[in-house]
Amino acid sequence: MKEITLIPFEGYKYIEGGVCAAKGFKASGTYCGIKKSEAPDGNESPFKAKNDIGMVVSDCICSAAAVYTQNKVKGAPITVTRKNLEATGGKARAIIVNSKNANTCNADGEQKAKKMCELTANALGIRAEEVIVASTGVIGQILPIEPIEKAVPVLVKELDYNGNEQAATAIMTTDTVKKEIAVEFEIDGTRYHLGGMGKGSGMIHPNMATTLNFYTTDCRISADALQEALSEVVKVTYNCLSVDGDQSTNDMVCVLANGMAGGSEIVTGTKQFEIFKKALYIAMMNITKMLAKDGEGATKLLEVKVSGADSLATAITVAKSVVGSNLLKCAIFGADANWGRVLCAVGYADAEFDINKVDVKMSSKAGSIHVCENGAGIEFSEDVAKKVLSEDEITIDVSIGGGEFSAAAWGCDLTYDYVKINGDYRS
Amino acid sequence: MKEITLIPFEGYKYIEGGVCAAKGFKASGTYCGIKKSEAPDGNESPFKAKNDIGMVVSDCICSAAAVYTQNKVKGAPITVTRKNLEATGGKARAIIVNSKNANTCNADGEQKAKKMCELTANALGIRAEEVIVASTGVIGQILPIEPIEKAVPVLVKELDYNGNEQAATAIMTTDTVKKEIAVEFEIDGTRYHLGGMGKGSGMIHPNMATTLNFYTTDCRISADALQEALSEVVKVTYNCLSVDGDQSTNDMVCVLANGMAGGSEIVTGTKQFEIFKKALYIAMMNITKMLAKDGEGATKLLEVKVSGADSLATAITVAKSVVGSNLLKCAIFGADANWGRVLCAVGYADAEFDINKVDVKMSSKAGSIHVCENGAGIEFSEDVAKKVLSEDEITIDVSIGGGEFSAAAWGCDLTYDYVKINGDYRS
Repeated sequence: MKEITLIPFEGYKYIEGGVCAAKGFKASGTYCGIKKSEAPDGNESPFKAKNDIGMVVSDCICSAAAVYTQNKVKGAPITVTRKNLEATGGKARAIIVNSKNANTCNADGEQKAKKMCELTANALGIRAEEVIVASTGVIGQILPIEPIEKAVPVLVKELDYNGNEQAATAIMTTDTVKKEIAVEFEIDGTRYHLGGMGKGSGMIHPNMATTLNFYTTDCRISADALQEALSEVVKVTYNCLSVDGDQSTNDMVCVLANGMAGGSEIVTGTKQFEIFKKALYIAMMNITKMLAKDGEGATKLLEVKVSGADSLATAITVAKSVVGSNLLKCAIFGADANWGRVLCAVGYADAEFDINKVDVKMSSKAGSIHVCENGAGIEFSEDVAKKVLSEDEITIDVSIGGGEFSAAAWGCDLTYDYVKINGDYRS
Repeated sequence: MKEITLIPFEGYKYIEGGVCAAKGFKASGTYCGIKKSEAPDGNESPFKAKNDIGMVVSDCICSAAAVYTQNKVKGAPITVTRKNLEATGGKARAIIVNSKNANTCNADGEQKAKKMCELTANALGIRAEEVIVASTGVIGQILPIEPIEKAVPVLVKELDYNGNEQAATAIMTTDTVKKEIAVEFEIDGTRYHLGGMGKGSGMIHPNMATTLNFYTTDCRISADALQEALSEVVKVTYNCLSVDGDQSTNDMVCVLANGMAGGSEIVTGTKQFEIFKKALYIAMMNITKMLAKDGEGATKLLEVKVSGADSLATAITVAKSVVGSNLLKCAIFGADANWGRVLCAVGYADAEFDINKVDVKMSSKAGSIHVCENGAGIEFSEDVAKKVLSEDEITIDVSIGGGEFSAAAWGCDLTYDYVKINGDYRS
């Protein structure tokens, strides 16, 4: 079961459509053979997706906001997208994205990324600066431009208001399932839609951004306001995700808002902005969970909730420390309630709190066990523990004191298949 | 091949004897059944060592220095040892250490750790404060004191000037080989000996100290000078080691110096002190490599050397970032020259340097490949790469600029067996 359980939120309705759920967004995806050694339906490689290139286009110009990896090694598409958004003052109309090659650490990377924007712009009749470009895949291999030159006209021709799934599968690398989400919500009588897609399975330990993720909405909002909402939400969603502790060179989350639902402009510091931000949170939090559950080799989604912290930063730091522990991840794989590893990871988190007030519970839909109180172990039933931890969505609640702040972090178990997938990825 | 290759150093000679190599040190080890469910020779558990408790005793009082884990969760033995060394002003005569139970996160932990000191002191006719106590094993399980009460008289009776191996095997947990080292060196015509033993295989990502490690020397040196040498050497040995990113709750490195070789007192700021410190470095660096090579499930020792840094801190930070990358560790397991993962980990290291000046080589006794220059990939032979990376000791050289500082970090590959060992450790 790689699908996550969707938690309901009052006032928000989950809908179909992913990146095409909002009005005026079309998408497409196709196979163009970026990785030449691979047969279109080659099942031998870990790449299950046939599509390797995708496009998203809005019927009109959009406000655009993005966050990027903090890795010093940045993929060429990151550099080009950042420059484009600066040149347009936060406006964009299209996204072009390929998988199978990250176009990173190549001498001609920036030139190729620009070329992808130009090809897209020419085919759509827009400016090259209005294109967001992204790549994901192997680092340090020259990106072949010929297959992309052939693919762009196909992508444009196949653009469709229901093309979200084609695009969502085009960005997959070692992902075993596509990752899409969409919500519908209302502000002052206008119905809005916000949807998105994400990819990523390994090299996931975001800082300020992660993996490749594209969101679209038909709200009317300025690029600055959109950026503020995105930056705040990323902090408590993508930045609280870790599959393997490795922060990618190509991470990007971007949001396009085309205003086609009508209604008033959403401005910061208002109730309307909070409603919009919550929609963005719901979408991003769910994609974050999908990314965690489909982490390379994963069999279980691990959610670590930290409460009672004196600050949000402390809550996040502790939650991320626990969710990132290799030893705990192995124990979760083995359904072993080895809470000592939770406490160990709480203890090496770089944050201030009283370790003697730490309380740990483990739960799933099969039940709950209380394993540690005031920093020391308490008796629990190993039988119940085994049942609780044998489910595919595990929650660990860690209370660290009397503070009012809490945060969650998401990850997955560490399994034989993680080693298998990554012991021979390039070949 | 779990044994490491010992590199020669001029003026220092590797000798046998481990913790008993220095004059006047006896040791012993025995099995007392701390983990009751386990048969003395039970081969079903990952614990291959039969001994579960060990002792080291000096013929006379010693200067003592120690560094401890920085984890907020600290094992009770850490607390008791620290108090003892404070009470005596850095003097000690004996070490008592058990495996199979960490005596950590237990309500009665400190009381039990003190009891271990008292039992040892009474049997030896010394003060309880002169005893260093340490425990390693599962966290959060009550330590049974009865087996230890029975074991102490046996340990005292069996103390032997050649007992180093008995003690070295007593501290093993998931270690597959014992870890001992000893060197002989000369200062101003006096021949000195310095030896030690270590343990540790998982939960290894030290900060200021690591795992359990005990060193002895017959040099005459004050506790303060010994502490200065220890703290400096730990920084470039144990603190540059990572097996799995998990920092243990019970880490400790301690050194005892009994002065029995005669000669002048070694004081800080002198040439003699530097000679002594280098002996300590050689011993600790080799045990660090042994710990890395015997990391849980490991098949290969990984050494990452960073040069050209503007500061020692930058060199260490980058080396540790690379050696700790799960993705790189998997690639090394698969003998895959995926240098993009090296560059990715260099890029997310929290340090300042120019990523466009990064140069990467991979080597082993089978040869060397140059894979990255000025931050971009260069062509190399995949056949040679496979041969180089199929050896069991791999070095990755990362040059990050024109600075004069360099550092090394040690780790191992990430394998199926790591997951297997840790998926079911407690049971």
